Amino acid sequence: MALIVQKYGGTSVGSTDRIKNVAKRVAKWKAQGHDLIVVPSAMSGETNRLIALAKDISATPSPRELDVIASTGEQVTIGLLAMALQEEGLQAKSYTGAQVKVLTDSSHTKARILQIDDERIRADLAQGYVVVVAGFQGVDGDGNITTLGRGGSDTSAVALAAALKADECQIYTDVDGVYTTDPRVVPEARKLDTITFEEMLEMASLGSKVLQIRSVEFAGKYKVKLRVLSSFQDEGEGTLITVEEDKNMEQAIISGIAFSRDEAKLTVLGVPDRPGIAYQILGPIADANIDVDMIIQNVGRDGTTDFSFTVNRNEHNRALAVLNSVQEHIGAREILGDAKICKVSAVGVGMRSHPGIASQMFRTLAEEGINIQMISTSEIKISVVIDEKYLELAVRVLHRTFGLDQAA
Amino acid sequence: MALIVQKYGGTSVGSTDRIKNVAKRVAKWKAQGHDLIVVPSAMSGETNRLIALAKDISATPSPRELDVIASTGEQVTIGLLAMALQEEGLQAKSYTGAQVKVLTDSSHTKARILQIDDERIRADLAQGYVVVVAGFQGVDGDGNITTLGRGGSDTSAVALAAALKADECQIYTDVDGVYTTDPRVVPEARKLDTITFEEMLEMASLGSKVLQIRSVEFAGKYKVKLRVLSSFQDEGEGTLITVEEDKNMEQAIISGIAFSRDEAKLTVLGVPDRPGIAYQILGPIADANIDVDMIIQNVGRDGTTDFSFTVNRNEHNRALAVLNSVQEHIGAREILGDAKICKVSAVGVGMRSHPGIASQMFRTLAEEGINIQMISTSEIKISVVIDEKYLELAVRVLHRTFGLDQAA
Repeated sequence: MALIVQKYGGTSVGSTDRIKNVAKRVAKWKAQGHDLIVVPSAMSGETNRLIALAKDISATPSPRELDVIASTGEQVTIGLLAMALQEEGLQAKSYTGAQVKVLTDSSHTKARILQIDDERIRADLAQGYVVVVAGFQGVDGDGNITTLGRGGSDTSAVALAAALKADECQIYTDVDGVYTTDPRVVPEARKLDTITFEEMLEMASLGSKVLQIRSVEFAGKYKVKLRVLSSFQDEGEGTLITVEEDKNMEQAIISGIAFSRDEAKLTVLGVPDRPGIAYQILGPIADANIDVDMIIQNVGRDGTTDFSFTVNRNEHNRALAVLNSVQEHIGAREILGDAKICKVSAVGVGMRSHPGIASQMFRTLAEEGINIQMISTSEIKISVVIDEKYLELAVRVLHRTFGLDQAA
Repeated sequence: MALIVQKYGGTSVGSTDRIKNVAKRVAKWKAQGHDLIVVPSAMSGETNRLIALAKDISATPSPRELDVIASTGEQVTIGLLAMALQEEGLQAKSYTGAQVKVLTDSSHTKARILQIDDERIRADLAQGYVVVVAGFQGVDGDGNITTLGRGGSDTSAVALAAALKADECQIYTDVDGVYTTDPRVVPEARKLDTITFEEMLEMASLGSKVLQIRSVEFAGKYKVKLRVLSSFQDEGEGTLITVEEDKNMEQAIISGIAFSRDEAKLTVLGVPDRPGIAYQILGPIADANIDVDMIIQNVGRDGTTDFSFTVNRNEHNRALAVLNSVQEHIGAREILGDAKICKVSAVGVGMRSHPGIASQMFRTLAEEGINIQMISTSEIKISVVIDEKYLELAVRVLHRTFGLDQAA
């Protein structure tokens, strides 16, 4: 008998029929004697509908009021799911973030969880209730409703699991686990039985949409046993995200190939090669609230240098405008933007003990005639920026090169 | 400079454009130097949509969870309205019932307000905020979300006006005041400048849909100055609901003709005329949670009597089934149901000092060949049950007979 937190995403609760299916699944776990806390997202499309209403009223809606509105999506789902659980013959009770309470800071639309009261939930569990808690939302110290930002329901579930010292936090989604890469690009992609937090973090930050990055950080920090499962399949163990590498097994060197199309590159050509130039270029970008990902500065020549960085593709035009406005001030010869690039990354903790992975990656891409525009590395990942048109080819050949299409 | 509570119904906030219009109206009042608390309903159709979702999950949804879901309708509107007010350049802040807080008992889906904390609202008003409070909802002593039942937003507004000792509570709706009768039935119907609480109460309980009956009771009890206005017209003083009859003016004897089509009649024929028979008939009806309106027992003959009562038309079939199931036990000869009846009522405090109103009413109906099936009277109203097909005719002739089509 264990205490399990289950999180169901928007697609899994996208209709009343799907909510009934979730209730049946929860009932099976309950019948096995487990205590259950269930954290649903808003029904798919609902959050977008609510935000569209707000945008209809104001181009720049008040974040406080946006949270008042957006939090209703999950509030509807918890009520419906509690009802569906009752229809399955279970005792069930729903709580909003404010009711639990899930205390956050006051950063509306992107609040961070500070603390979770476990008193009510523990009392209900002790009485045999399935407790349904709204994901994505909390309440600040002044009683204002807050939301955690997109994908925040994963974080809610992990935070609840941490606060209640749950035995496992299960994230139900529309895929049955974490894959070596996206099966839509590489049909040979395999589901991983386990992956480390570090790898999962890199995968998430590199474009894998399976888990929200903050929830993985949170789970890693509080040692929450996290598992990704499909809400549309009855079988399968999903993928377990582990704290430690599995010492007993032959570890694959590379666990997965991640990629992202949401990239754009900005290049500043022929700026004077002097101290402070990076700040002069990136300062205005930061002031415009644009996140920068990879940064490259080439060795100078003739007293000038070239400077490149990548941003989210949505920010490409804005970043270009910012650079154009400061071009004269920084003395740049030319500003270039390229929104037709992508980022492909190889991720694996085995990299630490296996040198030569980078060169193997670069050789493989070279053999296919794929030019590498930028490179970025960390201890457990290597990322390259390439022309968007080579994305599928690059992912496919790297997946094969690192033996990911072979059973582990 | 006054403190004014304004309540806007579902039609008045039925779209983002209408919400913007409400914000403009509020801004005008604010510009005149008034302090404002605004209580919106859910956008029209929204509460029904939410309840339909719940009914999809369960035929008998948990009232606690139904409240969790239904309360989101108003929560969306307060956020949108606060944003729209901010777009008008005003400071505005929204509160759910739980945030204010509006403390209620725990009778989910039909909770009663026990107390309203005015601390936050007063502090915000003092700082120049327009305060937007969700109607229809509250929170019980254990922090559970409650709703006040259909039309509960009127009650929320009046309760807030009472708690904050507001100078006036304005109910904005899609009509510009209280009429002598429904203008769709009698085009000559006139808007009343004033009406007493007692009359308004009778009108509301007799089928007038302008104000929810509980809100009128509440306003009468706490001496809240209540005014009904149109949210679609810029001009007009609406109808003021007053505590006292206006002694200075020639008071009309009858203030209005109310009517209701939501009626059905049940008749139990040939029951033994013995003590306790009324209870034997109505006990099972009460046990089935069916509200009974008018009750008539004819004088017995041959040791038996006939017994009739009316219920809401929605309950007709259920009431009939209950009676059929007890027919043998109570020894009734026959059970009859009639869902094609209606109730027409004349209401006016002037009735007290003017005898003969009843006979004038009955004569008028007789002259039109309208048979009266049941009669019920109170100090300030006379109601008759007649065949539904005579409804318009009866309302029209009574409206004329009592001089309601003449300017006061």
